[in-house]
Amino acid sequence: MDTVAPLLIAGRWQAAQDGMETFRAFDPASGDAIGPAFPRSGATDVEQALAAASAAAPRLAATDPERIAAFLDAYADALEADADALVQLAHAETGLPAAPRLRGNELPRTCSQLRQAAAAVRGHRWTQPVIDTAAGLRSHHAPLGKPVLVFGPNNFPFAFNAVSGGDFAAAIAARNPVIAKAHPAHPATSQRLAGHAQRVAEAAGLPPATVQLLYDVEPALGLALAGDARLGAVAFTGSRSAGLALKQAADAAGTPFFGELSSLNPVFLLPGALAERGPALAGEFSGSCLLGSGQFCTNPGLVIVPEGAAGDAFVADVQARFAATAPLPLLSRGVLVSLRHAIAALRDAGARLLCGGDAGTTGYRHAPTLLTVGAEDFLADPRRFQAEAFGPCSLLVRAADAAQMQAIASTLEGQLTGTLYRAADGSDDAAWRSLAAALRPRVGRLIADRMPTGVLVSPAQQHGGPFPASTQPGFTAVGLPAAILRFTALQAYDNVPDALLPPELRDRNPGGLPRWTDQHCTTADIGATP
Amino acid sequence: MDTVAPLLIAGRWQAAQDGMETFRAFDPASGDAIGPAFPRSGATDVEQALAAASAAAPRLAATDPERIAAFLDAYADALEADADALVQLAHAETGLPAAPRLRGNELPRTCSQLRQAAAAVRGHRWTQPVIDTAAGLRSHHAPLGKPVLVFGPNNFPFAFNAVSGGDFAAAIAARNPVIAKAHPAHPATSQRLAGHAQRVAEAAGLPPATVQLLYDVEPALGLALAGDARLGAVAFTGSRSAGLALKQAADAAGTPFFGELSSLNPVFLLPGALAERGPALAGEFSGSCLLGSGQFCTNPGLVIVPEGAAGDAFVADVQARFAATAPLPLLSRGVLVSLRHAIAALRDAGARLLCGGDAGTTGYRHAPTLLTVGAEDFLADPRRFQAEAFGPCSLLVRAADAAQMQAIASTLEGQLTGTLYRAADGSDDAAWRSLAAALRPRVGRLIADRMPTGVLVSPAQQHGGPFPASTQPGFTAVGLPAAILRFTALQAYDNVPDALLPPELRDRNPGGLPRWTDQHCTTADIGATP
Repeated sequence: MDTVAPLLIAGRWQAAQDGMETFRAFDPASGDAIGPAFPRSGATDVEQALAAASAAAPRLAATDPERIAAFLDAYADALEADADALVQLAHAETGLPAAPRLRGNELPRTCSQLRQAAAAVRGHRWTQPVIDTAAGLRSHHAPLGKPVLVFGPNNFPFAFNAVSGGDFAAAIAARNPVIAKAHPAHPATSQRLAGHAQRVAEAAGLPPATVQLLYDVEPALGLALAGDARLGAVAFTGSRSAGLALKQAADAAGTPFFGELSSLNPVFLLPGALAERGPALAGEFSGSCLLGSGQFCTNPGLVIVPEGAAGDAFVADVQARFAATAPLPLLSRGVLVSLRHAIAALRDAGARLLCGGDAGTTGYRHAPTLLTVGAEDFLADPRRFQAEAFGPCSLLVRAADAAQMQAIASTLEGQLTGTLYRAADGSDDAAWRSLAAALRPRVGRLIADRMPTGVLVSPAQQHGGPFPASTQPGFTAVGLPAAILRFTALQAYDNVPDALLPPELRDRNPGGLPRWTDQHCTTADIGATP
Repeated sequence: MDTVAPLLIAGRWQAAQDGMETFRAFDPASGDAIGPAFPRSGATDVEQALAAASAAAPRLAATDPERIAAFLDAYADALEADADALVQLAHAETGLPAAPRLRGNELPRTCSQLRQAAAAVRGHRWTQPVIDTAAGLRSHHAPLGKPVLVFGPNNFPFAFNAVSGGDFAAAIAARNPVIAKAHPAHPATSQRLAGHAQRVAEAAGLPPATVQLLYDVEPALGLALAGDARLGAVAFTGSRSAGLALKQAADAAGTPFFGELSSLNPVFLLPGALAERGPALAGEFSGSCLLGSGQFCTNPGLVIVPEGAAGDAFVADVQARFAATAPLPLLSRGVLVSLRHAIAALRDAGARLLCGGDAGTTGYRHAPTLLTVGAEDFLADPRRFQAEAFGPCSLLVRAADAAQMQAIASTLEGQLTGTLYRAADGSDDAAWRSLAAALRPRVGRLIADRMPTGVLVSPAQQHGGPFPASTQPGFTAVGLPAAILRFTALQAYDNVPDALLPPELRDRNPGGLPRWTDQHCTTADIGATP
């Protein structure tokens, strides 16, 4: 390959500046390199992106929100209009099914997120105005005034892409420029998305460096970038090891780091539920665990199954379903290698292989894999059994009684989700309450009677959890307007005249915005006759 | 001294367990040691406190909020009833005036904060419920389920004390146990406060380890404590060097760290304001800078004064006021030593001493001190001139024009506050707008025409700012209910039956609580006929 793809820096597609280290994408089905060469950026590219974003930040913060909303809507329209090409590229680079996954689910979700962000911008609700008229104090959440660095993961080429996903939409909604560090497993997809973003941003009149794209950087340079004090925040979705290294760099600079790192998403099957509908639960679990080849952050990687006949039947049922499924395609060689290591580590720890355990023969495939361990063994060394095995794999822990379930729950690290299946007749509810009490501080989303995969984009969502599932337990990466708050500063105005205040805080309500005014939530203007 | 004061661990006053390293308080007026010996805790004390708080955390999280509110109200009552003794102790240990400061301002403020926290608990507003009925998703902010470690500063023996101040009240309001690391400059005050807290907590039926008190720990042990993964959050008010070390320890454990570290609180005097009311501004500034011997985090430590006759007159007026003021008492020998070092560093950088610069002859006193530097020199090395000089000291920067003011604003580190004085006739407003735009992303509270000291406890307050003023730009340490959010986790419930939900999220509104239900803010019950 002679031509190397250009970077998007300061509103222009330009050649990488340092050396010419390149990489290519791989077709997961075959393991063959595909598409053009993409540059791995050096220090000059990174500095240019930082300088341009820093210059754009105050301009973007001062931009009329309607322009931002129009950009987000138009970007969604552009993605829909280009769906065929985008889906084809993403399918080639990730091995994810073009339909229904990419075309029917992920692209619509991505467009919906962008449009929900646009609606959130127009609604102003994320600004959370609070007004104390007697004190002359008014505060709200406002743009950081600095760029946001977004690291996208491998498993959602659209919906979590650094240049089109939830973090991107939330950072832009708060009027902060985004430096997108795409995932190197799907560079052509990222390039095409960024092309749309750039064109639409220019048409909307946003500053040229509102959206910038780097395909990859050397790890050491990535740490320097994440640790640059010019950033306002860093958002990361990916592996725990990479995330913790980047977090350390951002922490040292005093920059808020919002990472979503790893999760086992434990599922507890209470005895009544198992007795009542064991075969249905086996089907639900198998479907959830194998969906998308198990490559979801909310994949159920740990299931606590009661000992006894009903539990045995559940295990046998799931085992049969897994064994009947051909090896599943993974996103990249890296995912395959990590999965093999994780399975080996679980077996070393004492887990017994029930089925699977083997890679496929072509490309990056792995057989659906079930492991099992007794509760006593799990409890003897709970940390070793909590290593995430990202892919179509789950560990079934057999528990003798409610006390063992409770003990297991009490050893869990922070998780995105925790699920409890209970009998419909209420007979499990006492056990539910005590188990839920143990799980509650350890999970972001507590689920009853359905599997954790499928993270709805809802204002009531929490797609975060206690460390190390995510790095800030009070925030969510999914769900609007809450996700926007990660990229804001709380700003007060003290004794500032009405004309010099931002619109949300002026006496005149900008239009239907609920504001906490003198301890009451109201949409009224200040000084209006009640 | 034979007797060493006991620690409050797990609901009991007990002797320190490790060795017997002790320290005493000092009377700032004389520099003499006063009061009994207090233990510097070792690893055994710290472990006992952590273990007890961790055991108490889930019990406290499950406690009826009314019990928490009753505790906070009763604690305020107890402090008022014991005001004479508390004020006497705090005055002896800090040198702060018994009246009006401690008796008339700080103790009432402390009691008011506790009562506002109680009201916030009863109002449930901090839980921020969001309900999506179609999706079956409901979320709110909830207790961390883990202890909060609070480090109190030297300058507010009541209102920011680790066992009675704003961080304490906010952490308890969110139903988290507090491990209080008091400031070693006022141990007897902290002990007496903790005595009330303990007695009232027991009467309210709260778990014994809800409130625990350590007087001091070795720095290395303090870092180990802040870095213990059993903590849910760390709150710190104090020096930048100590705060950054503790932040690094907490960051490594993935524990949210809320630090308020340092601030110069720049004040810009626009030309019209100076021409209009120069003498009044000189009086306002001198009063603010010398109040409490300048020992406030919002002390105006940097003033940008236009060159020319009006500016010269302002400087001469302030200089006369400072020179006419006798050396002022400081909180401790440490404050005195740090102030002397900071003044020397500013002079080394090129600032010229206008008046003061000397320590007093008895106890820990220092003369009110003014330094000055030209804008060009400031801009040549802005970092050196931004070292905080905590105490009755300020640096006056003389700026030739609006462009230099703008340039200075653009070099500032993150600050708690930024103040702009403008002419009442509006003639400064164009300059105000551009200077405010430069300052806005660099300060938490933007102030017009009044001095930054006096941080009102208001729902609209922001007593934080961009790093390094504070470590989380989206949060405030002062102002309820917002301050409570630092000590909460965002928790979602997915498909959980009504009876198993927490009260704020059930179909039936617990009473007048505004909830975002299906995109509308309403106090209605779910399913009620509209």
